[in-house]
Amino acid sequence: MIEYRNLRVALLGAGSVGSQVASLLLEHRDELANRVGAGLDLVGVAVRDMDAARDADIPKELLTTDAESLILGSDIVVELIGGLEPARTHILNAINSGADVITANKALLATHGPELFEAAGQVGAQLYYEAAVGGAIPIIRPLRDSLAGDRVQRILGIVNGTTNFILDLMDREGESLEQALKTAQDLGYAEADPTADVEGYDAAQKAAILASLAFHSTVPLESVYREGITGITHEQVVKARRAGFVIKLLAICERLTGPEGQDGVSVRVHPALIPDAHPLAAVHGANNAVFLEAEAAGNLMFYGAGAGGIETASAVLGDVVSAARRHVAGGPGVAESAHANLPVLPIDAVTTRYQITLAVLDRPGVLATIATEFSEHGVSVEAVEQHAAEVRPGAASTATLVIGTHEATESSLAATVAALKASDVVSSVESVLRVEGL
Amino acid sequence: MIEYRNLRVALLGAGSVGSQVASLLLEHRDELANRVGAGLDLVGVAVRDMDAARDADIPKELLTTDAESLILGSDIVVELIGGLEPARTHILNAINSGADVITANKALLATHGPELFEAAGQVGAQLYYEAAVGGAIPIIRPLRDSLAGDRVQRILGIVNGTTNFILDLMDREGESLEQALKTAQDLGYAEADPTADVEGYDAAQKAAILASLAFHSTVPLESVYREGITGITHEQVVKARRAGFVIKLLAICERLTGPEGQDGVSVRVHPALIPDAHPLAAVHGANNAVFLEAEAAGNLMFYGAGAGGIETASAVLGDVVSAARRHVAGGPGVAESAHANLPVLPIDAVTTRYQITLAVLDRPGVLATIATEFSEHGVSVEAVEQHAAEVRPGAASTATLVIGTHEATESSLAATVAALKASDVVSSVESVLRVEGL
Repeated sequence: MIEYRNLRVALLGAGSVGSQVASLLLEHRDELANRVGAGLDLVGVAVRDMDAARDADIPKELLTTDAESLILGSDIVVELIGGLEPARTHILNAINSGADVITANKALLATHGPELFEAAGQVGAQLYYEAAVGGAIPIIRPLRDSLAGDRVQRILGIVNGTTNFILDLMDREGESLEQALKTAQDLGYAEADPTADVEGYDAAQKAAILASLAFHSTVPLESVYREGITGITHEQVVKARRAGFVIKLLAICERLTGPEGQDGVSVRVHPALIPDAHPLAAVHGANNAVFLEAEAAGNLMFYGAGAGGIETASAVLGDVVSAARRHVAGGPGVAESAHANLPVLPIDAVTTRYQITLAVLDRPGVLATIATEFSEHGVSVEAVEQHAAEVRPGAASTATLVIGTHEATESSLAATVAALKASDVVSSVESVLRVEGL
Repeated sequence: MIEYRNLRVALLGAGSVGSQVASLLLEHRDELANRVGAGLDLVGVAVRDMDAARDADIPKELLTTDAESLILGSDIVVELIGGLEPARTHILNAINSGADVITANKALLATHGPELFEAAGQVGAQLYYEAAVGGAIPIIRPLRDSLAGDRVQRILGIVNGTTNFILDLMDREGESLEQALKTAQDLGYAEADPTADVEGYDAAQKAAILASLAFHSTVPLESVYREGITGITHEQVVKARRAGFVIKLLAICERLTGPEGQDGVSVRVHPALIPDAHPLAAVHGANNAVFLEAEAAGNLMFYGAGAGGIETASAVLGDVVSAARRHVAGGPGVAESAHANLPVLPIDAVTTRYQITLAVLDRPGVLATIATEFSEHGVSVEAVEQHAAEVRPGAASTATLVIGTHEATESSLAATVAALKASDVVSSVESVLRVEGL
C-alpha cells in the first residue's frame, strides 16, 4: 500500500513536550504511517544532557548532543528547545538544508518570525507552529485556512493558563493574588519566577503571533501594549463579580481606525472586565480560549487545554503529519504573508469602556465636581453607583463611587484619571479597569 | 507582484449561502487575490430560475441556467444546490474535468461521500466541505489536519441549530415543544416541514461526516442510530434542570470495544441529559458546538453559528482560498482515507448511563421489587430519588421514582425497561433518557 520512502524526523529538545512527541511518534508509528502515506522515522533527539530525567521514556540510542549533524539529512525538524538561541540558528539551518520545520517557540516567532518566514519562503520550506499559541487548541490553522476568505475584526483571547488559573482561584475560592500564585506554583501551573506569565510577557508574544496571522500584517513584539495582573486585588475581583463581571487577562487584537482615519490594528494584553454571560467568562482553571469576531462568520470560540506536555504534543504531531503529507503530495506549501501590512496603532488610539472606582469625600456637590472632570476630558459617563459612606472618628467621611463610562480613548481616560487624582474631592483612585466583550 | 493567472470559480446555486458567497467573492476581490497569490474570477452562477429573488445582489450577466457548460473550464466549482441530484452528477463532472470542488452538501456527503472522494482521489482533485458541518465553525480542517497526529476518542456535538433553539426555548422560556417549534418557524429557524431537523436526520448526516473523518473509517448513513426530539416534554426539561442537567440533541461519535472484543465505533444521534456545568450546556439559541475528547489533546470545544447564509459563506470561502492556494502552489493535495476501517457497531453495543422515571404504586416492598428487576438484567443502580406520593380518592396512591444507573448497555437497559413495563408495581415508565458528558 505505502510506497513512499520513510521520512526522517529530527527532534530538538526532550522536555515535557518533546519527550511526549517522541513517545507518541514511536507508539503510534503504524497509525501515523497510514495517515501520511509514508513511514515517519524518528532519527534522533537532540538534548543538552544525555542523562537528564524525562517525562516519557526515549530509547537511549536516539539521544544525541549533536543537534547540527542531526538536522542535516532530516526531512522534518521539530524544534522544542524554546528561547531565542540556539533555536533560531537551528531552525535557519534546517530550512536551508531543505527541511520543513515545526516549532512551538512563541518567543522566537514573536521576535524573529518575519526573518524565519522569509528564509522558509525563499527555499519553499514550511514553518508550522500550531503549538505556539493555545497549546492543544487548533487556532493557527483555522485562522490561516478556515477564515482565509473572511475578515477577522477582533480576537479576545485567554492565552495564558497560569494567569487564568490565578484569577479563577481569586474569583472562585476567594484567595488573594499572593495565595493564588503560591497555589499555582505548588501545583506546577506557575514557575518559581512567574514574571513571564503574571506580567503578560507570554500573552504578549501570543498576541503578536495571532495578530500577524489574523490581519496579514507584521506585528513587532515591541508594538504590543502589555499590562500584567499584579495590580489586581481580591477586592476588585469580588466587586467585579457583584457587578456582573469577571476579570480575565485578555490578549486583544482588533482592527481600528487611527486618529488620522488610517486603517490599523491594536494589539494589547491587559486585565479586563468581561460580562459574566460572555463565553470567555466560563473558561476556568488553566484552560485557554480564543474568542473571535469575523465579518462573515460572526462569533467563534476555540477552547481547550492551553498547556501541558502531552496536550501540546498533540498540536506538534498534527503539524508533523501536515508537513509529512506535503512531502508525499509534493509541491511547495502555503507561504506566510504580510500583504495587508496594517500599522499597529499605539494604545492611545484604542477606545474602550472603563470602570473607575474612586474614594471621595462624602459631602454635597462632590458628584457634580467629578462628573465635570469626566465631561471636560470628553469621557461620557454611563452609570454611577455610590457605596455606603465610611465614617471614621476624627476624619472626614468618605464614600466609594463606581463609575462606568461609554467608549472613550485611552488618552482622554488617562487625562481624566490624572485630573481626578489632583482633585480636592477625591481621596484616591482605587481602580481603573477596562471593560471588554460587551 | 501577482504573476499567476486568474483562477476561474464557478458557483452552482444562489440561495442564502450561494448569493453571499458570490457577493463576498466580488466585494473582497483584491483582498482575496493578495491572500491567494492569484485573482479569483467568478465566471458564472448556475441557477434554476434567472428571476428569483436573492439574499444578495448578483450581476445579471453572471447568472446562467446551464450548469454543465459552466463547470467545464472552471478551476474551482462551488456546489451549493443541496440534495442528492443533480448535485452529485455536477460534482463528478467537475472532478472529472480537473476542477477542485467545494461543497456544503451534508446529505450528499453522508450518502455518496466514498464515491465522491474516490473519484477525486483518482484524478488528484480536492473535495473541500468545511461548511457541511457546523456552518461557520472550523471543524473539518481541525479534525483532518490539527488532530492528524492524535487519536480522537469521542465527539459530542450540538450540530443542529433548529433543535438546539427549540430545546433552549423550552428550558429558558418554559415553552412546550409545540410552542417552541412554532416560535422557531416564525423566526425562520425551522422550516414549514421541520422533520429533517426535529427527527434528527440532519444531525445524523453530520454525525456520519464527523465520524468518518475522526476515525478514518467509512460510516454509512444507515449505520447511524437516530432519535429526534419529538418525545421530549416540557416536564422532562424542567425536571432535568432541577436535577442539574440540560437536555440537548447530541451527535455522538465514539471509539468502542464491541461485544466480541473488536475495535469499533458508535455513531448516534439522540436527546441526552448533560450536566449543567458541561461546556455544551452553555450553548444557547441556534448556535452549534463540537466538544471533542482526544487521547493527547484532551478536551477541546469549537463553538459558533451553525447556520446562516453569510456565516456559512465564510466557511465556503475559506475552502475556496485553500483550493486556490493549492492551484498556485501546485501538487496534489491530501486525499481522504478510510484506512483505519473500523466497523460501526450497533446501538446495542453502546454503554452509557440512564435516567429512568417511573410512576409506581406507593406501598411497601415496591422499591425492592424494582431494584431486583434492574439487577436481574445486569443494570447497576447508582441513585434513586422518590418524589411525593400522589393520593387520588378511590385510586391506589402512586409515587414517582427517578432512577440513575451506572453505565449499562442499550440491550440490558431495554430488557430492564420491558420488564418494568410488565411489572405489577409499575403504573407507567414516564421517561428514559441517556446521560452524557459526565
